[in-house]
Amino acid sequence: MKKTGKQTIIFSAPPVIAASAAVVGEKEGQGPLSKCFDFVSPDDYFGEKSWEKAESAMLTRCFTLCCDKAKLSPSMLDYVFAGDLLNQCMGSAYAFKDSGVPYFGLYGACSTMGESLSLAAMAIDGGFAETVMAATSSHFCSSERQFRFPLEYGGQRTPSAQWTVTGAGSVILKSCGEGAKISAVTTGVITDAGITDANNMGAAMAPAAYATLSAHFADTGRTPAYYDLIVTGDLGAFGHDNLEELFRRDGTSLGEHYTDCGLLIYDRTAQDVHAGGSGCGCSASVFCSYILGGIADGRWKKVLFAPTGALMSPTSTQQGVSISGICHAVAVEA
Amino acid sequence: MKKTGKQTIIFSAPPVIAASAAVVGEKEGQGPLSKCFDFVSPDDYFGEKSWEKAESAMLTRCFTLCCDKAKLSPSMLDYVFAGDLLNQCMGSAYAFKDSGVPYFGLYGACSTMGESLSLAAMAIDGGFAETVMAATSSHFCSSERQFRFPLEYGGQRTPSAQWTVTGAGSVILKSCGEGAKISAVTTGVITDAGITDANNMGAAMAPAAYATLSAHFADTGRTPAYYDLIVTGDLGAFGHDNLEELFRRDGTSLGEHYTDCGLLIYDRTAQDVHAGGSGCGCSASVFCSYILGGIADGRWKKVLFAPTGALMSPTSTQQGVSISGICHAVAVEA
Repeated sequence: MKKTGKQTIIFSAPPVIAASAAVVGEKEGQGPLSKCFDFVSPDDYFGEKSWEKAESAMLTRCFTLCCDKAKLSPSMLDYVFAGDLLNQCMGSAYAFKDSGVPYFGLYGACSTMGESLSLAAMAIDGGFAETVMAATSSHFCSSERQFRFPLEYGGQRTPSAQWTVTGAGSVILKSCGEGAKISAVTTGVITDAGITDANNMGAAMAPAAYATLSAHFADTGRTPAYYDLIVTGDLGAFGHDNLEELFRRDGTSLGEHYTDCGLLIYDRTAQDVHAGGSGCGCSASVFCSYILGGIADGRWKKVLFAPTGALMSPTSTQQGVSISGICHAVAVEA
Repeated sequence: MKKTGKQTIIFSAPPVIAASAAVVGEKEGQGPLSKCFDFVSPDDYFGEKSWEKAESAMLTRCFTLCCDKAKLSPSMLDYVFAGDLLNQCMGSAYAFKDSGVPYFGLYGACSTMGESLSLAAMAIDGGFAETVMAATSSHFCSSERQFRFPLEYGGQRTPSAQWTVTGAGSVILKSCGEGAKISAVTTGVITDAGITDANNMGAAMAPAAYATLSAHFADTGRTPAYYDLIVTGDLGAFGHDNLEELFRRDGTSLGEHYTDCGLLIYDRTAQDVHAGGSGCGCSASVFCSYILGGIADGRWKKVLFAPTGALMSPTSTQQGVSISGICHAVAVEA
């Protein structure tokens, strides 16, 4: 069996990242990673009349761009693995409905890019496919309407609240060729620290990141120093510090090269985002632009990408149920 | 590559169904398959105070029963693949949150049992796992509240409306041992026939079943006669007839041995279910009890199980977007 330890697969023939694309909204285009994205929309509508349709249009654009960059038509994809935050994952379903590609719908909350990359890599290494897409998206306005309030309500946000990224990311994996490789994946277990504050997702997700990263290090025998960059998905400022603290109690330092996509995508001093970015599109758009770009440029050679998701719904929150978390880690090596 | 044709995998070492379990609610326990289920709840609460928590409790019970039947502890599972209809797939997330098993969350609407079985089988045949669970659930009351109206509203139902099954199903696949085997899976593409009536899911899903079954026959060179039983997920009376008509136009008959889980689970003359059963739990509970039981008893040797899903949300319906469908087919052989 290829599984190493309890949660990790080390690939014998690591799948290659043949292309990636990142498409974002207006606010993300004003942030520090502006120049890394493939397309920045001048508004958040993407030519559509509803926020939900806008999210699908953004993901369709991202998917098409990624195929173009890989110089292949969608019909050459063996599978798509995709999901998003919208109820019944409509963002992805409508984005891929005319693609004609065999489709696996996922729900991993904001960890979806890690889940889709893991399953896409397994499909290739398992010998079931040669070319697979992993994709996800989130949209600030569709998320606000669904999880919190209609924008027009103008609800006050708490300091620990994060700003859902309007962004999409997609990756095409191939069985061979040039590019960075996915060397290992660590699949998360669901963790629950009893957090019930839906405005403090970082606290709910940090224990999941701790559990998955710890399992990754234990399963592989690697230490944080093995990687040039360890980047969680969207823990934000508070969750980032929580995770460092959890490792500190173990006597482990994640080191200077640990950061979080939610801290990278916005300028927190100039942009009104409180604790940072969040949403499936946060880690996806940062990974598919800044991080993979940095590997291509030689800035990093070994990256551990660990997007995190908060498993909750407005209904579960109203019923007083605690917010569980999950984190899927993906090791990418030049 | 193990993929045959555009959408199908024929497994070289077919994964074995080591155990299955089905847990249902009161109404399902009054139907014709009553004696097939592992547990019938005397009410629809499963000891909980909300419908959503009841759904999770039902799935937890199903999962535990399945592990007991396979004589293994949850810690021996390499992965769980699960999802459900609730917003943010909370039914599954809370059911598995204390399991400690690496978790892949899925969203395939009512096709989820087909999607989870496909990915679980791929995880085993790909060499990533030895023991994997595939599971899903639906609950009439949580679905009505979410997709239609609160029960107290007493909304009038149309003749084409289906009754969401309160039920859960789970399967444990192993790399070797005694039991029926998954010989092939055909992964669906998203289809859209332009249906916008959320009370006519059968019409929205029949084209997806037609597309996937056609692909399965084309990819494998098999005909409907290869199978003793072809069973779709939850097309109900209208969708069942639509699918037969779509094949008839091709000059193909699905034969006497074609049926639908939505027609099997209730007695439509005695139980007030209109066009039949629906929901992830419909195909899952029928497959994990009546169908796998029938294979074990020697009633059928070759079964093609093809659960269907309608990819829609109340928001997309309100925005006038058409309802897409997807269908994942799984071939099970004694």
